Amino acid sequence: MSRDFLQISDLDHSDLTQVLQLSASAKSDPDRYSGKLSGKTIGLFFEKPSTRTRVSCEVAAVDLGAYPLVLRQEEVGLGTREPVKDAARVLTRYLDILAFRVFSHSHLETLAAYSEAPVVNLLSDRGHPCQALADLQTIAEHRELPGTRLVFVGDGNNVANSLLVAGAMTGMEVVISSPEGYEPQSSVVSLATELAASGGSVTVTEDPRTAIEGADVVYTDVWSSMGDEKDAERRRSDFMRYQIDEELFNLASRDAIFLHCLPAHRGEEVVDQVIEHDRSLVWDQAENRLHSFKALLLYIAGVT
Amino acid sequence: MSRDFLQISDLDHSDLTQVLQLSASAKSDPDRYSGKLSGKTIGLFFEKPSTRTRVSCEVAAVDLGAYPLVLRQEEVGLGTREPVKDAARVLTRYLDILAFRVFSHSHLETLAAYSEAPVVNLLSDRGHPCQALADLQTIAEHRELPGTRLVFVGDGNNVANSLLVAGAMTGMEVVISSPEGYEPQSSVVSLATELAASGGSVTVTEDPRTAIEGADVVYTDVWSSMGDEKDAERRRSDFMRYQIDEELFNLASRDAIFLHCLPAHRGEEVVDQVIEHDRSLVWDQAENRLHSFKALLLYIAGVT
Amino acid sequence: MSRDFLQISDLDHSDLTQVLQLSASAKSDPDRYSGKLSGKTIGLFFEKPSTRTRVSCEVAAVDLGAYPLVLRQEEVGLGTREPVKDAARVLTRYLDILAFRVFSHSHLETLAAYSEAPVVNLLSDRGHPCQALADLQTIAEHRELPGTRLVFVGDGNNVANSLLVAGAMTGMEVVISSPEGYEPQSSVVSLATELAASGGSVTVTEDPRTAIEGADVVYTDVWSSMGDEKDAERRRSDFMRYQIDEELFNLASRDAIFLHCLPAHRGEEVVDQVIEHDRSLVWDQAENRLHSFKALLLYIAGVT
Repeated sequence: MSRDFLQISDLDHSDLTQVLQLSASAKSDPDRYSGKLSGKTIGLFFEKPSTRTRVSCEVAAVDLGAYPLVLRQEEVGLGTREPVKDAARVLTRYLDILAFRVFSHSHLETLAAYSEAPVVNLLSDRGHPCQALADLQTIAEHRELPGTRLVFVGDGNNVANSLLVAGAMTGMEVVISSPEGYEPQSSVVSLATELAASGGSVTVTEDPRTAIEGADVVYTDVWSSMGDEKDAERRRSDFMRYQIDEELFNLASRDAIFLHCLPAHRGEEVVDQVIEHDRSLVWDQAENRLHSFKALLLYIAGVT
Repeated sequence: MSRDFLQISDLDHSDLTQVLQLSASAKSDPDRYSGKLSGKTIGLFFEKPSTRTRVSCEVAAVDLGAYPLVLRQEEVGLGTREPVKDAARVLTRYLDILAFRVFSHSHLETLAAYSEAPVVNLLSDRGHPCQALADLQTIAEHRELPGTRLVFVGDGNNVANSLLVAGAMTGMEVVISSPEGYEPQSSVVSLATELAASGGSVTVTEDPRTAIEGADVVYTDVWSSMGDEKDAERRRSDFMRYQIDEELFNLASRDAIFLHCLPAHRGEEVVDQVIEHDRSLVWDQAENRLHSFKALLLYIAGVT
Repeated sequence: MSRDFLQISDLDHSDLTQVLQLSASAKSDPDRYSGKLSGKTIGLFFEKPSTRTRVSCEVAAVDLGAYPLVLRQEEVGLGTREPVKDAARVLTRYLDILAFRVFSHSHLETLAAYSEAPVVNLLSDRGHPCQALADLQTIAEHRELPGTRLVFVGDGNNVANSLLVAGAMTGMEVVISSPEGYEPQSSVVSLATELAASGGSVTVTEDPRTAIEGADVVYTDVWSSMGDEKDAERRRSDFMRYQIDEELFNLASRDAIFLHCLPAHRGEEVVDQVIEHDRSLVWDQAENRLHSFKALLLYIAGVT
């Protein structure tokens, strides 16, 4: 097997649909898949600290009968103590799947080029495709994806990148509202537009009020990701108008749901009243990281 | 299941007896329980470093067929990168039991309030109830608990807190001897007295010689726990009279045993001759962390 | 069971042959050994960071059905937070085999003295016997060991120590070429000579060109191991003449293979053209860490 998953666009429409179906099935009938990856070893590497990704991926592997082996940058020295291409050629001799969280997406590309084992992106500066799978699953639990108005308000970061491509691919009307200078890269928007299913679209707009009007899903993420802390002060001021407070959330449709990939900074990108709202599904969304990662592992291993 | 274990007093007399019996049974007949928690995942979180707790709990889980997932503060950022209540609501979606070592006991209370999964205290500033279970098992391997004179000499710390409540609950005559200003909190002594089984009692006395006379069990712990290192110098001088040396140990009954939760600082709270004495049972006591944690997991899961 | 493996010479000729056979068998027929160590727990302790050793040993244990428990110095405080003899007596109550990577070999000796569980050296300042097993396996995959001319060029360090004893024990003509002052200890050379099988020998020579002539195997390692970084500058200049570049490698026999225990520092001990040469077997060698560690675990557990 050699199906890397570096970006959400590594799946075509049909694969994506299949993974989402597997994900729903793994959630409703977990016993059906237990032991399906027995004897497999999954490397989980973290260059940045992680709670949700690490725990959900580790438990997903265990539930499928695989063995998760968690590696940290202090141990591996990826790109410092050892060139990425050497680490790839060594680890591929021991492990069946390499799932890596890195700062630089180019590390994933080097890993994929030199590893025989499939490489999975657990977050890079360019995308967070595993998060996007969980996001789609969470939305799909509440409404048909095609035609849904999905509004991401905030930094056009890695999470937004994967979300907007995934949204367009599944026929959603995706709107991204970011302050000037923080929009998603135009190449990502172009890709999303190109891959959009019938009815799917991507719009970028500066005004969050216009964006959020009629939203079925309101999504935000922290204003400063790991690595951006140096200009956190400036970001706070640039982003303040994009805070999801009750007034802004009320502009969305009356049954709109709220999503956030967590951890959240209350009082910054979202207020307590919204994240604790009864239409906030952030805990379900976190749980779906587990089911969707199982689905991805099964898909990669060709067990469906 | 939702039986938190934050303090030894979360068990009533009958539960405590049941856990101790399970613990003895898990030691004498480990195969009987292998696989009993198959399919369960146990989160083991450490805000402070740990050898005994981490290894014994991890192996206990594995022996029962469960999967132990070890988390560190650098990864989770409990109360820093993410509010405790959010971490609780996320982790409870992935894990069946949350066993946490924290500085602040209030974190455990927040976890328990927000987690559906049972929460276990693996050491907090207020207590070390898993240690107390191993302590009781070790004493019970050598004599009937009721009527035993158990003398704790040293800092009235978290270990002492759990021990004195556990001792009183099992009918022991517990004596705590601490320098002025280092006694266990009076609320803990009151609780222990209130929960004391028939024959059980708690006495606090400053003089270690009076305390240790006729002791069946002599127990001590380090003078400076993690976090107290700043005033280690002053503590050394305040505690010197409480060092368990051969002379002091010889005041105990002639078949008295010595216990210590380890790691020990030879030349401080205990001398080499006592910890290496043939009546020192500290290695058995450490081993019993394994069996008693198995018993606790089985009890929490309702498998008895 | 109580068969420590602190040095390659802890195995006699017959044991070593048996382990090498097991290792080849574990590689060609892995399923044959799956589950053979079911129910066993293997402690893997790392005082220094590690990729190859950690991942290969962890996967080896899992493949055999054992549970690998990875410990770090920050957790255990071996020799700092707790005396080595106490850690040994505690860990032996929980774990079936203790495999430790340490700076000071004397820690391994103390562990072995106080532990009932067998102790395995995963690298110390004195030797790297698990690496030597993988090295022998890799060479044996390409030619008969007896009579093979094995040339180690570089620092007479822990890797060299184990290699030269292992080489002599298996009848190889071992040549070590190091700058003055960096030769392997004469006691190790004496031991190797004493344990040499028929045809086996050890020669130490300063000139790398003389050494490498007619070599069947060319082996090198980094010039500065962890802990030597302080005088890295001086070492670089002392060792420059020992760099395995294409010219030097071409002095070896025309089908000579290149080995390196990794990680490699290209432009220091080896140039890119040699480590990427089609006769460089460094990835196979890394893979063999997995199979040979399985063989060692089986041998120690008496399962053959």
